[in-house]
Amino acid sequence: MKNTFGQNVSVTLFGESHGAEIGAIIDGLAPGIEIDETFIAGQLTLRRPQGIISTARQEPDPFQIVSGVFEGKTTGTPICVIIPNSKAHSADYSATRSLARPGHADYTAFCKYHGFEDYRGGGHFSGRITAALVAVGAIAISALQKKGIAIGTHISRCAAIADRSFDDLPADIAKLNQAAFAVLDAEKGEQMRAAIEKAAKQGDSVGGVLETAVLGVPAGLGEPWFDTLEGTLAHILFSVPAVKGVQFGAGFDMADCFGSEYNDAFRMDNGKIVTATNHNGGINGGISNGMPILFRCAVKPTPSIFKKQDTVDFLKNENAQLELRGRHDPAIIHRARVVVDSVTALALCDVLAGRFGTDWIRGDGI
Amino acid sequence: MKNTFGQNVSVTLFGESHGAEIGAIIDGLAPGIEIDETFIAGQLTLRRPQGIISTARQEPDPFQIVSGVFEGKTTGTPICVIIPNSKAHSADYSATRSLARPGHADYTAFCKYHGFEDYRGGGHFSGRITAALVAVGAIAISALQKKGIAIGTHISRCAAIADRSFDDLPADIAKLNQAAFAVLDAEKGEQMRAAIEKAAKQGDSVGGVLETAVLGVPAGLGEPWFDTLEGTLAHILFSVPAVKGVQFGAGFDMADCFGSEYNDAFRMDNGKIVTATNHNGGINGGISNGMPILFRCAVKPTPSIFKKQDTVDFLKNENAQLELRGRHDPAIIHRARVVVDSVTALALCDVLAGRFGTDWIRGDGI
Amino acid sequence: MKNTFGQNVSVTLFGESHGAEIGAIIDGLAPGIEIDETFIAGQLTLRRPQGIISTARQEPDPFQIVSGVFEGKTTGTPICVIIPNSKAHSADYSATRSLARPGHADYTAFCKYHGFEDYRGGGHFSGRITAALVAVGAIAISALQKKGIAIGTHISRCAAIADRSFDDLPADIAKLNQAAFAVLDAEKGEQMRAAIEKAAKQGDSVGGVLETAVLGVPAGLGEPWFDTLEGTLAHILFSVPAVKGVQFGAGFDMADCFGSEYNDAFRMDNGKIVTATNHNGGINGGISNGMPILFRCAVKPTPSIFKKQDTVDFLKNENAQLELRGRHDPAIIHRARVVVDSVTALALCDVLAGRFGTDWIRGDGI
Amino acid sequence: MKNTFGQNVSVTLFGESHGAEIGAIIDGLAPGIEIDETFIAGQLTLRRPQGIISTARQEPDPFQIVSGVFEGKTTGTPICVIIPNSKAHSADYSATRSLARPGHADYTAFCKYHGFEDYRGGGHFSGRITAALVAVGAIAISALQKKGIAIGTHISRCAAIADRSFDDLPADIAKLNQAAFAVLDAEKGEQMRAAIEKAAKQGDSVGGVLETAVLGVPAGLGEPWFDTLEGTLAHILFSVPAVKGVQFGAGFDMADCFGSEYNDAFRMDNGKIVTATNHNGGINGGISNGMPILFRCAVKPTPSIFKKQDTVDFLKNENAQLELRGRHDPAIIHRARVVVDSVTALALCDVLAGRFGTDWIRGDGI
Repeated sequence: MKNTFGQNVSVTLFGESHGAEIGAIIDGLAPGIEIDETFIAGQLTLRRPQGIISTARQEPDPFQIVSGVFEGKTTGTPICVIIPNSKAHSADYSATRSLARPGHADYTAFCKYHGFEDYRGGGHFSGRITAALVAVGAIAISALQKKGIAIGTHISRCAAIADRSFDDLPADIAKLNQAAFAVLDAEKGEQMRAAIEKAAKQGDSVGGVLETAVLGVPAGLGEPWFDTLEGTLAHILFSVPAVKGVQFGAGFDMADCFGSEYNDAFRMDNGKIVTATNHNGGINGGISNGMPILFRCAVKPTPSIFKKQDTVDFLKNENAQLELRGRHDPAIIHRARVVVDSVTALALCDVLAGRFGTDWIRGDGI
Repeated sequence: MKNTFGQNVSVTLFGESHGAEIGAIIDGLAPGIEIDETFIAGQLTLRRPQGIISTARQEPDPFQIVSGVFEGKTTGTPICVIIPNSKAHSADYSATRSLARPGHADYTAFCKYHGFEDYRGGGHFSGRITAALVAVGAIAISALQKKGIAIGTHISRCAAIADRSFDDLPADIAKLNQAAFAVLDAEKGEQMRAAIEKAAKQGDSVGGVLETAVLGVPAGLGEPWFDTLEGTLAHILFSVPAVKGVQFGAGFDMADCFGSEYNDAFRMDNGKIVTATNHNGGINGGISNGMPILFRCAVKPTPSIFKKQDTVDFLKNENAQLELRGRHDPAIIHRARVVVDSVTALALCDVLAGRFGTDWIRGDGI
Repeated sequence: MKNTFGQNVSVTLFGESHGAEIGAIIDGLAPGIEIDETFIAGQLTLRRPQGIISTARQEPDPFQIVSGVFEGKTTGTPICVIIPNSKAHSADYSATRSLARPGHADYTAFCKYHGFEDYRGGGHFSGRITAALVAVGAIAISALQKKGIAIGTHISRCAAIADRSFDDLPADIAKLNQAAFAVLDAEKGEQMRAAIEKAAKQGDSVGGVLETAVLGVPAGLGEPWFDTLEGTLAHILFSVPAVKGVQFGAGFDMADCFGSEYNDAFRMDNGKIVTATNHNGGINGGISNGMPILFRCAVKPTPSIFKKQDTVDFLKNENAQLELRGRHDPAIIHRARVVVDSVTALALCDVLAGRFGTDWIRGDGI
Repeated sequence: MKNTFGQNVSVTLFGESHGAEIGAIIDGLAPGIEIDETFIAGQLTLRRPQGIISTARQEPDPFQIVSGVFEGKTTGTPICVIIPNSKAHSADYSATRSLARPGHADYTAFCKYHGFEDYRGGGHFSGRITAALVAVGAIAISALQKKGIAIGTHISRCAAIADRSFDDLPADIAKLNQAAFAVLDAEKGEQMRAAIEKAAKQGDSVGGVLETAVLGVPAGLGEPWFDTLEGTLAHILFSVPAVKGVQFGAGFDMADCFGSEYNDAFRMDNGKIVTATNHNGGINGGISNGMPILFRCAVKPTPSIFKKQDTVDFLKNENAQLELRGRHDPAIIHRARVVVDSVTALALCDVLAGRFGTDWIRGDGI
């Protein structure tokens, strides 16, 4: 389905970095869900560039909901959110159009679209498109919140600096969702910001690891084969630009260990079945077990750096060198985390609607 | 779509560990592809248990192709492969039916299927079901081979022992596809086998990391959003039992590094555009760039161990202890690798058919 | 998705007329639904050839449920039903292999499958494959019955003879579901049978119209665009061999009339909103309105006739004549009706599961 | 997938009659296809109301392509076309909000959306939404034209007046695609217009039958089961408002006839296999045979009439009467035909891309 994801609640994305408008559609969400435009605006702000640690392209993202909402509530029909592009500097890009940025999609876009792609500012591959994803994701996040499902993501690692681990999940998530720079340990956050600024000054970029926790997901979601909860979440998480790995629970850490160390023992807790540890990240056999869903995403260093790089001119088919100019992020991990929250919410809405029906999320018993 | 994966070439899986038959259907494959039953049998052999390092349940997997093949070639209609179950010891399981094995799907199956699940031998969650996946995967693998696409997986880590890295990819892949225990360094393989045997004797289990390389994938496959090549592969890879993480190229290793270190510089190589390094695992912006596709899967230690474990009885809702009997694998990583190859081939057939049409894979110009 | 239909409850079909086995998988059905093998066998009997008015190929359809059922109830995992082929007379077909039967799929199969198709007995296009569809459809029908949804189809026209219209729907449906030859007016049925026999003696065939009623479908099913209830039902109804038209309610009869004649006035009936007439066949704006769903399917005369016909030899690319031998039906309308009921039930299960969640159909409040 | 149709080339629709904007996205179309904005505008004009025979709501449909087109050509990424709503008279509707218009979707929308639907002017069910479908359909139509595929629809019947049948298909199609009122016999067209005007004066409405021909569709498109070419086309055709029946070729006319009369004999014609007649409408066994695709759609009389009608107030649950005011079409058949052409083109693009790959439609050999 290409630019559409989801069977029961689906999201469709469109737009290019320097086109007239970008936007996204969320379809299949129950009618009667209140739309909180302030929350949407807040999420867009979390995604926006921040000072020196981000690109110099700063624009306010004045989104418009053009369909699917009536008298402040979802109607049950497709909700289209549109964000106009205003501050495009197209002149920045045309000169280097056929000099493939290493690590970026310029060359693969050319292979796929045969030169007809809108190359300005990364076109349809631009991180800018995620603004639309965040806007509809915000609608999904607030719908889930009303059902007691909370999502939070922190920068677990950045530039080799590690944030502390999740501890008190509800409190940590609440804190992260207010934070402009999403770390649990403020001091580590300062170190990360300093490291990003330093890389920026050197014309370089850094990556990191995002760790996400989801509370309140009912047990019994997901399928044993193919549409495992891990597979469904990973599918959409790899759409977050720069994500190159996804692991659930202890993930790759389990590779070196014994089953006796990493099995999560079950036990009764006030009449409820829980696990003593959560190395499986809340998922067994592809299906949620009622514990918090935990996963981590590897975010590679932003490929657009200002250092001189070897590359090719793919129109001339010859070696070349590239010295990038324009506006680029020395790190996107602090902006990507809200995109991770957004796509997580979109995927969960889809899985929940498939399991419990289209009206479940409204939850007023109709 | 639950037990079906793929839009243009799809696979559907059915069966339970102790049911009458397991099987799989591959639909959408081009007509005219030769079926090599010896190769299918060989792949099934690679998946089968091996001596003390595997479960004691040993059965020959006498598969039968019941549709979609005529005069030794695919017809273009659904190919159903059936494998009868013969050596089921159902008595082993009924006693402990409601004692949830930690790390396993017993409890989540109960949450999802409300107690109607076939609990014998893991039912539909059993690793045994992967035999059917391997059978149809073998058809996909040999179709891809004729188009110059080769897939190989090695045990990159097991029980904290590391195999050597990929070096000469074509030779390494050829070697792996003949190996019963898929390592590149035979000595490391012996150490791994010894570690598995030791864990088995202790009633414990071990995990590891599988690393896969795919050669010959054309540039331009995958989509910028949602159906990224990474997302599509990860979606199905998380169906391989025990896989808890998937990373492409350098993956999580990139998190601590600079863009200048991990960008893959492009260069001309005999008139062809290649990259000097391959930290991105052959994929930029969700789309293949013509370099080898590289990814790693985290395989957790088998959850079925013989040590006494704390758990609950989910029918009685009370704490309990479990001392497992029966036949279980102390490691599945050496068996899982052929499942990884199989699902990789199935996903690639789907993506290729979507890109180039249903007949491309036959490639005889019709 | 080709040989798979449905998003939430899906059906996958496989097999060829003269292959080893045919079969079908129904996936996504709730766990805990009782399987009535006698009812399945009964539905297969309704589909089977009957004396002179059908093909001489008579076989008992000894179906086997190989997965997804445990202790007599659905487990919630894919249910695969297999029917072995026993009485194949392959020799009948090879001689005329490249003489395209007019009105049949021989030539289009050749265009699509390039000569690799299994041409024996119509291969994957054979009406025989519908036995598998009827088997899984029977499971869907009996699941719906427990939720108060009843489906019945009668031969509304055959060989220019018209059955009476539906009158008392519950009674009519109950009667039809027991009838070997599904008419409401027994005398008209005798005339139809006589007309079919007469056509058979002349080496010819006849068609007709099937009319279907579905009771108990809740209001609010279907989507305004694309996945209208009409569109979803029509999609699968056109898979019933020989169906060339589908109309809902008054359908084409409305074309010549005024809105004032064909609008269905709403009125209260014991506190429930109903319509005074049902020209819209229970569907407005693509969505069920709670009235009976009514539709008709045009069934063309069976293309396999024994009269000499002009055709081509598509391997030699030359004009030819065809005088068919073998076993063929002079009419399939009396057999097709149970296939119509089956696919209707399968489509409704999918739509209901999408609307109300996977467990709704079991309906015991879990 | 609700408001999205298509697997390889997909269309997504959004908007409400009185919302800010309506729009549609076409995704999956090959890069490099020229966009002809004049043709899109022309198609929108064909859909627009015409004098007394249409609604008094007349607006110019100033569409805007906001993504997926660069330098006048498709980029291969999603093309979003937006049409602002300007002349909404919302006051017309609120008074009668809960008086269900007989034959219309007011009551079923209420059943589905629980009262949260945007009821103004039919909301998401409004025929106005088809403007967006026509805009993206125009892009599909002109892409198909360059591959030699031509689509034409005429008003075969309206108010019991019959147009002449198709005769010289290429000439007839060319003529229809220029005609504001799509008939082949101008005199019959005048009679139809007079009949519509007469019905309008009486506050009533009329329906009719649209007949469509598609030239140039290659043989071998479609699937034997489920995704038959008939089923795929019918699926989307039932989204055209007021369509209540779809028949291919002779359709329901075949029901009363013999196989010997309606089988289409094959014959050689200048080295090409053709059929002497085309009762099957160019489709055998669900797959195109290379002959023109022919089908007819039943269009019911517009449900919004001005005569007093019995109905219910679905908020008060009581009987009521409705005397509609506002702007409504006494017939939509002359406007619907361009919607039929549009959805036919969208469905064919999807099927062709699935068969021949994403780049086929551009057809310049890349």
